[in-house]
Order: sequence, then C-alpha cells, then structure tokens
Amino acid sequence: MAKILAQGVFQTESLPCIESFGSIAGKKEGDGPLGDCFDRIVEDSHFGQETWEQAESRFQLEVVRIAAAKGNITKEDVGMICAGDLINQCTGSAYGLKELEIPFLGLYGACSTMAEGLITAAMFLEAGFGERAAAVTSSHFSTAERQFRYPLSYGGQRTPTSQWTCTAAGAAILSRGRGACQIVGGCIGRIADMGIDDITNMGAAMAPAAAETVSRYLSATSTSPEDYDLIVTGDLGTVGSSLLPQLLADKGIDLADRHRDCGSMIFDPETQDTHCGGSGCGCSASVLCGHFLPRLERGELCELLFVATGALMSPMSLQQGGTIPAIAHLVHIKRR
Amino acid sequence: MAKILAQGVFQTESLPCIESFGSIAGKKEGDGPLGDCFDRIVEDSHFGQETWEQAESRFQLEVVRIAAAKGNITKEDVGMICAGDLINQCTGSAYGLKELEIPFLGLYGACSTMAEGLITAAMFLEAGFGERAAAVTSSHFSTAERQFRYPLSYGGQRTPTSQWTCTAAGAAILSRGRGACQIVGGCIGRIADMGIDDITNMGAAMAPAAAETVSRYLSATSTSPEDYDLIVTGDLGTVGSSLLPQLLADKGIDLADRHRDCGSMIFDPETQDTHCGGSGCGCSASVLCGHFLPRLERGELCELLFVATGALMSPMSLQQGGTIPAIAHLVHIKRR
Repeated sequence: MAKILAQGVFQTESLPCIESFGSIAGKKEGDGPLGDCFDRIVEDSHFGQETWEQAESRFQLEVVRIAAAKGNITKEDVGMICAGDLINQCTGSAYGLKELEIPFLGLYGACSTMAEGLITAAMFLEAGFGERAAAVTSSHFSTAERQFRYPLSYGGQRTPTSQWTCTAAGAAILSRGRGACQIVGGCIGRIADMGIDDITNMGAAMAPAAAETVSRYLSATSTSPEDYDLIVTGDLGTVGSSLLPQLLADKGIDLADRHRDCGSMIFDPETQDTHCGGSGCGCSASVLCGHFLPRLERGELCELLFVATGALMSPMSLQQGGTIPAIAHLVHIKRR
Repeated sequence: MAKILAQGVFQTESLPCIESFGSIAGKKEGDGPLGDCFDRIVEDSHFGQETWEQAESRFQLEVVRIAAAKGNITKEDVGMICAGDLINQCTGSAYGLKELEIPFLGLYGACSTMAEGLITAAMFLEAGFGERAAAVTSSHFSTAERQFRYPLSYGGQRTPTSQWTCTAAGAAILSRGRGACQIVGGCIGRIADMGIDDITNMGAAMAPAAAETVSRYLSATSTSPEDYDLIVTGDLGTVGSSLLPQLLADKGIDLADRHRDCGSMIFDPETQDTHCGGSGCGCSASVLCGHFLPRLERGELCELLFVATGALMSPMSLQQGGTIPAIAHLVHIKRR
C-alpha cells in the first residue's frame, strides 16, 4: 500500500515498473528532431482507413501492439487498459482498443492523459487489482483541427501562439518489478483556471496547472528541481514553457536548467512552421515512450518528473463565455 | 491489497466503504416514481445559469456538496475526485468541480461512469493513495439531446426505442471502514460491439456488455444471481432489459427475478411519455445514491450488484459508418 504524502501526492510501495512501451508518429513528427526515436513512422495520415478518426483509432491499437510485442506480452496478460484522447466521446480509444477485449477504463484528461493513465495503471497495480496494466493515448492533427478549430480545407490562418497537434501515440505496460523504469510516486492534478479564454493559447492556460502540480510534489517530497535530472512537461509549447519558470519562481522554486517540454522538442521551430511547438495527448505520450524512457533505460537519466498538461475546455464551453480550465498530472519515474 | 479473481475481476481487502452519498434530479425525474428519494429536486432546468451546460456543471458541484455535507466531510478530506459526463470534453465535470480544488481524475465511460468512478475510488483507497475518494457524474436532458440527437427547438419525433436522458446527478464519497455499504468487489468491463448502429436504440447496444460483465463476475466468484438480492443495471431501458435475461440464459445464467434497471424505474411509462425509460450518466448515479444505497443502509437489501452500462460512440463515429461499442462496469456492494 502506497504512502500518502499530501492531498493527491503518493509514493508507491509495490514496485510498479514500466515493463514495456512503444511509440508511433506521423510523417511530420518523423521529420522532426526526434524522428529517429519512434518505433514506427506512419507516412499516410489516413493509416489505410477511410477517415482520420478511424486512423487515430488505428494508431492506438498499433502502439499497444508494438508495446506488447516488445515485451512479449499477450492481451490476456494485461488486467486493465486505460486510455483516452481528444476526440468527442473519446472514440479514438473505444474504437481502437475494442478488439483487444482487455478490461477498459476510459479516461478524459485532454493532453494530460498519458500521465493520468500512468497514475491509474500504477494505482491498479498498487491496489492489487491485477498483475499488469496498460496506459495509452493518441492525438491526430486532422481530427483535432476540425473538432477544436476549423476544417482543414478552410485554410484558416494560425495565430502566433498556436501549437500543432501531433499525429502520434504512446503506450506503456506496467507490472510489478519488471523493467528498468520504476514509478516511485506521483501527484494527481488539481484543476486550475486563471481566466485564459484564447483557444489558440493553450500554453498560457496550462502553465499554472503545471506550476501547481510541480510545486505540490516538490513540497510534499521535500525536494527541489536539482534532485531530478529533468522535469519534463507535456505540451506547454514555447509560450507556456517561458511562463512556467516565472510561475514557479513566484513560489520560490528555481527550475534552473532542469525543464524540458515535449511540445517544444518534437518539431524544429526553424523549418517546420509549427509556431509554438507540438501539442495533443500523443505529443507527450510519444516523446515519453520514444525518447525519455529509452534514455532512462540507457542510464543517461536517473530521476525524471513527467508532468503532462491538459486543457479541459470544449469549443462550446468557450463559445458560451467560459475560460479554459487546465490540469497537470505528475509521475516520478526512476531508473532502477 | 486486493485479490485478483480473473482478468479485470477483483475482491477488495481494505474495507472500502461508501461513507456518504447524495443525489439531485430535475423536475421530470422528481415527478417520477422515485421522486421522493432524491436529496434535492431542481425545478429550473437552467439551475440559475445561462446555459444548460453550465446548469449541468452546477448539478455536479451541488451533488458533491450534498454528499459532503451529509457526511460532514470537507474538501480537504478528499484525496481525489473522479468524474465524467456525456458532454464533449467532459466539461460538465471540469467546470463544475474546478472550484473544489480536489485532485481530479477525469473519466469517460458514458453512462457507465458511476460504476467506473466507484471502481476508481475503491482502487484509490485500496492502493493507499489517500484516505477518501469521491465519484460523481451527471447528465442533462437538454445538453444530451442537442449534442447526440437534435436541437430541442427542432422538435424531432422520438422513435419507439429511444430513452429519455435524465437531468440528474449522483455522488459518493468513499473511505475505509466508514459507512454501512462496503464495496467488496467488482469487474472492469470489456468493450462489446455487436454491430448495433441505431443511436436511438442504446439498450440493444449495451445489453451484450452488461451480459459479458455480469457473467464474468459470477463465474470468477462462483456465484449465481440467487446469491444477490438484486442485480441493478444502469440504463438498459425496457428494450435492453428484455434482452439481458436472454443473453445471460444463452450463457447458462438464470437472472430469475433479481434484475432491476434504473432507466426502467425512474420514469412512469404510463404517464411520462419517455418511451423505453431513462438514460444518461445521471440516471444510474441518482437512482443508486437516491434509492438503492438508502435501501442498503436501512437493511432492506444486503448484497447488490450495480452494473452501469455505457455506449461509447459519438454522433460522428456513427456518421462515418461505425457501430456502437458499449461497456459495463460492475460494483459489488454489501451491507456491513
């Protein structure tokens, strides 16, 4: 049974580890600075399907298959799979994973889903509900654009603060004691809403949530950024990444050189015209599973805080005058 | 640490109990056969807000406040709240609960959300991530109609197999060893898709998921329907409720007189013109928390299986030719 450090902050006791993991990404992500790290690049944005939504479902199924195959794990071995995505009613997950017939917990954490899924999977193991649990999420540029912004064929101009939703997915399969990367603790996010109502400036909306979660975890564990090799946020992009150190400085925390952001890493700002960087559930999921977990396995990193951030609005909630509530969940991953 | 009985089936060990709970419903639900059992009836479908979506958020906040007040529990006492709803991007939950500042896990299980939430909350306690956890969900007739079917002002005719989305919410706060109702076990649902593609016939889409989950739990626990006082499904409605016994009979299980369905109970079929009954996340949540948990507390029931069912499609997934994937999660609740 885990140790409770503060409200929503826990340390695990039963050695939940990431036994296997996989990543998959689209062409543009494959052309970016991290292109070589993904297990598979899919050049066709339809992934052989009739619609982009069906393609996103196939991304999820495929990335779970990759993670399972790498770990030589069958679907009968997995007691629970938790997943979510950005599409209305999370159909990317439901349609993608239904043929696996693994007991399924649907999540909605927007772009924080990978961290929420890792927490849920670790909780499942820590509770003893099963021997293995999987977490998966995805995003797709074309499904997200037409749902949250404009139909692609409209050709709307993107604002300077906008980010590019990644076509990508990541999956992790957890079990007790197997694998080099251990989840030693975590922090469940609180919803933060600082009044941002610009749907093209998610970084500004999400940075306060990341700051709240990071500061709560550091405080509860009596640690500081220097105790970690890296503190990796999900998709704050360049705007949000410039705000986070300021917000933490206001709380007396110096991030120093420890901060990285998956959204700021996945594209080349000089050549790929993505404005403030990448975003989407699949951004942090694929960068964690394609770049950071392998670095932990290779021993290049030992202690990492993975802080995926999500914006919990809908187009309708903004049309009705709402602001953007955001959340950030934190997972502390340690090389064994 | 829990005991694993089969894939996705668990028995708890740390005495997770429903310490407090609350229910709230709209005018039509208040006029129905269960009207007297809800903690609060809200006659105004806007609940003092400008939009129905904002009203649904207020339903969630209010029902958590009711549950907390009844148990004399403060928001600082609750280590995690999990919630979801039917509105795109689950904004009913995010906007409704943000001011509580309780660490938040967003769920998407469609109308199965109350059972998914109870499983997640029990898992949180069983894992030792905190001392208390809350599960809440809601639905609203007017938000669901315009999102999944037609704008209300269009006045579309409802088909004979359609159900009426309840304007209602339910919340439960769990802790270890406090309260008369103990969660002794449960079963995480698998996604079932039998090829139904009629968005006005959810009962038929969801019944196979309920049958799979119930039969898996009975098999793993070596029990039969006679071992329980009632097996309560969420919102199969009259069509789905007529299918469930047949589907279970095919698996050699005789439901006998044990089955009840929240959707078939909440409205009066003679006078309320709801066709196949009620539906929506708030239907099973409010009937569980308003009717069944009090009956357990009063000792009228001792062993209850709560099986909330959800349909995981979106209007777009059906427009693209998809069928309706469904899921059912089961929670075994026992009077102590």
